[in-house]
Amino acid sequence: MSDNNEVVTVEEIKNGFKTIQNNICSYLVEHTKQEYLEDLWDYHKGTGGGITRVWEGENPEGFFGAPDAGRRYDVLEKGGVNFSCIEGDNLPSAAATQFNIAPTTPYVATGVSLVLHSYSPRVPTIHMNVRYFQAGATWWFGGGIDVTPVYPNLDQVVAYHRGLKAVCDQFGCDEQGTTYAKGKAECDSYFHLKHRNETRGVGGLFYDHIRGDSSEAAKRKAWRFIEALGLAFVSLYRPFLEENISLPYTLAQREFQLYRRSRYVEFNLLFDRGTKFGIQSEGRIESIFMSLPAVAKWKYNYKPQPNTPESELTDFFLKPQDWLSLNQ
Amino acid sequence: MSDNNEVVTVEEIKNGFKTIQNNICSYLVEHTKQEYLEDLWDYHKGTGGGITRVWEGENPEGFFGAPDAGRRYDVLEKGGVNFSCIEGDNLPSAAATQFNIAPTTPYVATGVSLVLHSYSPRVPTIHMNVRYFQAGATWWFGGGIDVTPVYPNLDQVVAYHRGLKAVCDQFGCDEQGTTYAKGKAECDSYFHLKHRNETRGVGGLFYDHIRGDSSEAAKRKAWRFIEALGLAFVSLYRPFLEENISLPYTLAQREFQLYRRSRYVEFNLLFDRGTKFGIQSEGRIESIFMSLPAVAKWKYNYKPQPNTPESELTDFFLKPQDWLSLNQ
Repeated sequence: MSDNNEVVTVEEIKNGFKTIQNNICSYLVEHTKQEYLEDLWDYHKGTGGGITRVWEGENPEGFFGAPDAGRRYDVLEKGGVNFSCIEGDNLPSAAATQFNIAPTTPYVATGVSLVLHSYSPRVPTIHMNVRYFQAGATWWFGGGIDVTPVYPNLDQVVAYHRGLKAVCDQFGCDEQGTTYAKGKAECDSYFHLKHRNETRGVGGLFYDHIRGDSSEAAKRKAWRFIEALGLAFVSLYRPFLEENISLPYTLAQREFQLYRRSRYVEFNLLFDRGTKFGIQSEGRIESIFMSLPAVAKWKYNYKPQPNTPESELTDFFLKPQDWLSLNQ
Repeated sequence: MSDNNEVVTVEEIKNGFKTIQNNICSYLVEHTKQEYLEDLWDYHKGTGGGITRVWEGENPEGFFGAPDAGRRYDVLEKGGVNFSCIEGDNLPSAAATQFNIAPTTPYVATGVSLVLHSYSPRVPTIHMNVRYFQAGATWWFGGGIDVTPVYPNLDQVVAYHRGLKAVCDQFGCDEQGTTYAKGKAECDSYFHLKHRNETRGVGGLFYDHIRGDSSEAAKRKAWRFIEALGLAFVSLYRPFLEENISLPYTLAQREFQLYRRSRYVEFNLLFDRGTKFGIQSEGRIESIFMSLPAVAKWKYNYKPQPNTPESELTDFFLKPQDWLSLNQ
């Protein structure tokens, strides 16, 4: 980290994002013993490109094989941790209209996006995005993290929210809107499937435009916050993965997980702004869609039995909750 | 069918759509020996509602069981043939803006929508929608049909397009834009996944606003066309189902089918206007999403081997083709 008074360059931010990507990838490779596939790509509509790193586990089921009790399954069924930095002389028109910036303005958009779908229904899916955007003299940071469990553990959910609050308390501030309270509320509001009347998961943080008073000092402070969030990822995800990966589960629980994964698909394709921006700006589609699960199932009008973990998921965990007040 | 000079009432159109639904459902039940599940629903934001009829086949695979050579599998894996008629005193705001009609205008929207996903990868998925909309003095019909094969048979595709042309030649007309040439071109343009640079399938017909000169005679003519299209469905679908259902297929072909089904999901959630209208008007979500397949798979950056049926699908069949000029 640099001195508070120094100008934050795009180069520093890019390098910071690459460090975050490497940090997360190292943890995942070490812990899962699964290697990622790396694809470098160039942005065909401008300059720049990205480093896509994808995991696809061997599916022990295929669609046909019975699970083998003696076999060690892959931890990650599908996931990606992607860095990208794209630049152009002319803002894509959708972004120009949305942000009310002249379409002839040169721009830079860079960040890290990740989604990890594990094979076990006991391990939640997690998503994080940290990003920087500038067009001419306008700039902002953004970011978010959210967790989508199938069989949630309340203690872990509360601990995760406490961890998020600790990052916000240390690096966030009220004048930039980077408090836990604001980020938590925005997250509940953004990751909401209105057609299902449920949240995508147990929430987290979401910030769309962090810019403070647009001064260099504000940019430094905003970058420190986003960088800290990115570097906190491993400690936030670790309990969800390491405390649950060895838990047994039934084939019915796996089926329920695949059913729930269709909600993840619905959110990403119907509502997610990053996905929409990626498609509008003609980004690399396979990198954008790394967020989609390996398998999703739709079952007509399925409703879990009352008083089961499956109904508790939607009745309690997928409604906005004041997690910090629970389970003290 | 009524006399050409008679006024077409909403009641006649509704009853005609119900007849189309019954006609198609009878064929499917008789031929597949699978019963549908019927749900009647009321529109909570206005009056009216619908008759949803859904098929969900038993999945012989589960995710775990091996296919059993001695067993007769269900024909339809998932499908729905839905009738609906919703009415309200105030047009939903998205529709009012889109059509430039005062939001205080009373409206009626009625039609039949169907999607049939069969279990065998040798039988194409088919979709049809026939509909009528009126708001105050404004009215139009619309409709479309398109076929999405995984392992297409060119002769069948050509015969299907010839069948569509025969309907258009008999009931369509140039001044209402209900020719084969126009409907075929609109279909290729509408069912296009721009982020994949491919069509959803081998096309068919698509008409958004059939209204002619808005006279009663024009309404009668337009309704005759839409009704004829709906009643032609069974004869159009029959060869795709009956000529292919007994063909053998491999597990790898079934896997490829599940991979291709993710494109169907992408189209419906990213682009389909009917799905968007349904969500915006807060229609019954389980009826809207009957169009989604039972199972879809996403595989990172998958590309079929060259010179295989799998690559020929995207290289030839999922590009707009002049089908009538082929295979004569």
